[in-house]
Amino acid sequence: MSEKAFKTGETVNVCTVNKPEWFFSINPLAKVPTLQHDGKVVYESLVCNEYVDRVFPGRKLLPEEPLEKARIGMLQAIWDAKISPNFYKIADKDQEGRDDIIKVFKEGMSFLEKEVAAKTFFGGEEPGFLDYSLWPWFERLSVLEVASGFKLEEAQFPKLSAWQAAMRDRPEVKMHAKDTPTHLQYLMSRKQGNPDPDAGLQA
Amino acid sequence: MSEKAFKTGETVNVCTVNKPEWFFSINPLAKVPTLQHDGKVVYESLVCNEYVDRVFPGRKLLPEEPLEKARIGMLQAIWDAKISPNFYKIADKDQEGRDDIIKVFKEGMSFLEKEVAAKTFFGGEEPGFLDYSLWPWFERLSVLEVASGFKLEEAQFPKLSAWQAAMRDRPEVKMHAKDTPTHLQYLMSRKQGNPDPDAGLQA
Repeated sequence: MSEKAFKTGETVNVCTVNKPEWFFSINPLAKVPTLQHDGKVVYESLVCNEYVDRVFPGRKLLPEEPLEKARIGMLQAIWDAKISPNFYKIADKDQEGRDDIIKVFKEGMSFLEKEVAAKTFFGGEEPGFLDYSLWPWFERLSVLEVASGFKLEEAQFPKLSAWQAAMRDRPEVKMHAKDTPTHLQYLMSRKQGNPDPDAGLQA
Repeated sequence: MSEKAFKTGETVNVCTVNKPEWFFSINPLAKVPTLQHDGKVVYESLVCNEYVDRVFPGRKLLPEEPLEKARIGMLQAIWDAKISPNFYKIADKDQEGRDDIIKVFKEGMSFLEKEVAAKTFFGGEEPGFLDYSLWPWFERLSVLEVASGFKLEEAQFPKLSAWQAAMRDRPEVKMHAKDTPTHLQYLMSRKQGNPDPDAGLQA
């Protein structure tokens, strides 16, 4: 959010496994992200991104051209359907149907690979909303390798690997970067059935 | 789509139970709606609605004001999560966990009831994109009653009942209206495990 003049009042990390009661009272779907601004609640990835882009000053992070904008929305939908719900399941080697889960996960990644091919970022020469909304998951990919040996092979996803390197180099990404042990701490708390959404933040 | 100067080249009704192979080749999520325009593919309800609204001339069906627009997106998300996936399950009295399904379905409807309270349509004094994207399901609600006795009680959903009456009165809605026997024909073909997405269209 460093690209928008976005003064975060308070960030509440919500445990997405054991969802707290109050969360349902502001968002019936109890999904993250959920924003509260001027007493109004906004949720759903696509809806939040557009709301923030239009309401706050700063560089525009969503494209104006209708087909370009649709493309970003479709990729976010593929991510939400094929990748994020399967992410942590891959960390567990004993997960039932893990091979099929990995297959769907990589299918989703293949769409990203194809779409980032022509440019440095999904947003073009500078990162846009899709880059920033997906990045936190890529930062966390290393824990899957530590926990279960799973990684996205650079040979299979060369463009996505180059994109990750370019993202890692951005000053605003560096500013918020968390290391693998921190992400692993969350993964372990999650595995023990009591995920700690603030894991590593006390440091 | 009568409100937009939208010349439909060809409408393909896709069976959403037994999805055809070619459908996955244009949309990896194989969900309806999916549009093809100038050789480009666009999918996801929110994404399609905005694309059509921006690319085709005619009355604007999505609000400009950021919070109003977010509100429409959030309601569509509630519909997609709580109502549409449960719709046909309610028709089957033997459906496992049917009481819980009805509970979730009505929860979703309660959000719509609250949101339409102050206006005639979700779009304001004239229907907007949410009105047109939800309406086909409401037109079909009568089959749930015929098939299994389920109905949304007017006493519990008075505003939504008034909205349905107002929608039914619109000339563009009348022009595309299908009757209960037609919707029932689809439901029966679906129940027999071989849903016919063109049911009633041959007439």
